Amino acid sequence: METAGKVIKCKAAVAWEPGKPLSIEEVEVAPPKAHEVRIKLFATGVCHTDAYTLSGSDPEGLFPVILGHEGAGTVESVGEGVTSFKPGEQPSATQSSRCTRTSGQGLLPDKTSRFTCKGKQIFHFMGTSTFSEYTVVADISLAKVNEKAPLDKVCLLGCGISTGYGAALNTAKVEPGSTCAVFGLGAVGLAAIMGCKVAGANRIIGVDINPEKFERAKEFGATEFVNPKDHSKPIQEVLVEMTDGGVDYSFECIGNVQIMRAALEACHKGWGQSVIIGVAGAGQEISTRPFQLVTGRVWKGTAFGGWKSVESVPRLVEDYMNKKLKVDEFVTHTLPFDQINEGFELMHAGKSIRTVLTFGSA
Amino acid sequence: METAGKVIKCKAAVAWEPGKPLSIEEVEVAPPKAHEVRIKLFATGVCHTDAYTLSGSDPEGLFPVILGHEGAGTVESVGEGVTSFKPGEQPSATQSSRCTRTSGQGLLPDKTSRFTCKGKQIFHFMGTSTFSEYTVVADISLAKVNEKAPLDKVCLLGCGISTGYGAALNTAKVEPGSTCAVFGLGAVGLAAIMGCKVAGANRIIGVDINPEKFERAKEFGATEFVNPKDHSKPIQEVLVEMTDGGVDYSFECIGNVQIMRAALEACHKGWGQSVIIGVAGAGQEISTRPFQLVTGRVWKGTAFGGWKSVESVPRLVEDYMNKKLKVDEFVTHTLPFDQINEGFELMHAGKSIRTVLTFGSA
Ligand SMILES: NC(=O)c1ccc[n+]([C@@H]2O[C@H](COP(=O)([O-])OP(=O)(O)OC[C@H]3O[C@@H](n4cnc5c(N)ncnc54)[C@H](O)[C@@H]3O)[C@@H](O)[C@H]2O)c1
Ligand SMILES: NC(=O)c1ccc[n+]([C@@H]2O[C@H](COP(=O)([O-])OP(=O)(O)OC[C@H]3O[C@@H](n4cnc5c(N)ncnc54)[C@H](O)[C@@H]3O)[C@@H](O)[C@H]2O)c1
Repeated sequence: METAGKVIKCKAAVAWEPGKPLSIEEVEVAPPKAHEVRIKLFATGVCHTDAYTLSGSDPEGLFPVILGHEGAGTVESVGEGVTSFKPGEQPSATQSSRCTRTSGQGLLPDKTSRFTCKGKQIFHFMGTSTFSEYTVVADISLAKVNEKAPLDKVCLLGCGISTGYGAALNTAKVEPGSTCAVFGLGAVGLAAIMGCKVAGANRIIGVDINPEKFERAKEFGATEFVNPKDHSKPIQEVLVEMTDGGVDYSFECIGNVQIMRAALEACHKGWGQSVIIGVAGAGQEISTRPFQLVTGRVWKGTAFGGWKSVESVPRLVEDYMNKKLKVDEFVTHTLPFDQINEGFELMHAGKSIRTVLTFGSA
Repeated sequence: METAGKVIKCKAAVAWEPGKPLSIEEVEVAPPKAHEVRIKLFATGVCHTDAYTLSGSDPEGLFPVILGHEGAGTVESVGEGVTSFKPGEQPSATQSSRCTRTSGQGLLPDKTSRFTCKGKQIFHFMGTSTFSEYTVVADISLAKVNEKAPLDKVCLLGCGISTGYGAALNTAKVEPGSTCAVFGLGAVGLAAIMGCKVAGANRIIGVDINPEKFERAKEFGATEFVNPKDHSKPIQEVLVEMTDGGVDYSFECIGNVQIMRAALEACHKGWGQSVIIGVAGAGQEISTRPFQLVTGRVWKGTAFGGWKSVESVPRLVEDYMNKKLKVDEFVTHTLPFDQINEGFELMHAGKSIRTVLTFGSA
């Protein structure tokens, strides 16, 4: 490639400071160093974790930064020692990284950044930074996927969908015939419902304070719905009554510590398991009486649904290609990259499940 | 038997009100009704759960009551429909019930009591009430054990020892080669250590604020010791450093909600499991940051170590007879039943692991 080894100037959405809209800027993207790959992005999803860091609530958030972590694109060039990806040849690659604050410190593994803008160094985000026409990532955070997969869909397999789906299949290991409750019917909750259904659950109860979410949840496999606002009793009591003692599995897909407690306490004593997927605000704590656990409930959590990203993403893409796993149904909005702030607004207003941004030039 | 069908007058330790010593009284024990068995006790252990209810802290505690739930004895007579136990013929039976407030409401399954004293009805405790020369229990809370087993030892398999041992084997399913931490080195903690050792754990770290407990814990299999009082840092940080990231399994055997949190947070991210065994004071809550679970730790609890009492106690007795499971080593004091209050004092002073009370006439 003629760009290989050179700095690339391109468009990126820069978060200069917390709480402000993103600003589309021209940035410089340095060539990849050893064991790094420079990607030309084709599409990226907008996720709550991006919004969480942008809001300033993330104690580990660093600014200025290029956010974004659900991306897919093609390899532009590779650094020294990269053997599994080749420039040009590989038509598709999806970036995937755990949607939790485990990676990064805002830099690549060698503790430096590849981004500058207006003379300033810009931080990386989760080692991915997909809100840019070009980005540089460590080769170990890249997955090669089926060449026929539509990149503007499978980019979403880098985070929320895989997380909810895997929480049911890998973390909870939902058993056939069981009763499940899913709290929060956004992308993660819908994916958890899909996982429960694939695992053979018999009853799947969707819980959300926004009843507009119920219709779509039904398409994903939910069999019943509860709106906590329709009840004066605590939601855990409502569910325990509905299920004659409690559910076998529950999933918190909101990020609300009160609901995390409710999800645990809605489980059946003796064997019920509750999985926390939502990411709570900094410093917030979950609590319950220890008796809840002593009587046999299990409290778990999941990061990226228990998938090992690099190995699992191609498998998830195959499940999608074989129509076992829905992805298209999550995409409620597709916007050009320039309209990224609109993507965030749709999310905050609860209007979108997932917005995918596409990069025009691809 | 000449006593069958008649009321038996005998000695029992009655708890007239919370917070007072037990009082040895003459009580009347009515004959067993359908599906009940009247037992002549040979020995009984003194456990913290008895002390907890006696203290008045147990919100479900009812008075006056005959406490005690780690007992063994012989069948005196049986009620209608009892087929698995015969009077006289069966030389030994150990009573076992979950050492948690799940059974009872202070009465037998038919919602009445078999005890009176000075004209007053006395409540049952956990369906067992072993602090009496004779007691009546539901046949389903009785287990038949090896005739050769010494009853003044195997009575302890009704509760604490089986609980700690089972917490390691059944609840945590400790894997060979793993690193474990056991918080609290009383009978339950020692039994958890024994379970970890039987499961093949490589490192077993005992944690107690009373260093006198370390010597005995070593005999049960502990490989290292930590006294939180020797450290200025939180104990979870000390353990994470000692184990290069955290332990694979931890067990809380105290009943302290702060230590329950420490035990969870001492676990390795990604896979560490913490099991709550200790029973906390009424109304107390455990808490932690949800991130602890989202990053892959699992929080569990156990009641009676995951054993199904009636089926498992005979198996545990066999393990004891085959020297796989230690019991004798837990008995630090054996006292005549009349000295029951001394048994409680030894426990409160931290001087005993287990005191066994024997009934003279057996
Ligand atoms: N653990 C992980 O690896 C991981 C990965 C991806 C996302 N997440 C987290 O999962 C959570 C959900 O993500 P999403 O994209 O689906 O979010 P979303 O905002 O699209 O969905 C949340 C849903 O919860 C509902 N809700 C809000 N408060 C509620 C309440 N009190 N009771 C019932 N329902 C309520 C909302 O109406 C909405 O439908 C977020 O916290 C996100 O950060 C975690
Ligand atoms: N879940 C169940 O089924 C079940 C069954 C039996 C007993 N239990 C509970 O298990 C707990 C332990 O029972 P036990 O008979 O072994 O009690 P114990 O009092 O003999 O042992 C407790 C130990 O903890 C130590 N300790 C106290 N505070 C500590 C601290 N802050 N840090 C470290 N060590 C500390 C004490 O020195 C003592 O050695 C009790 O809460 C009991 O009610 C639960």
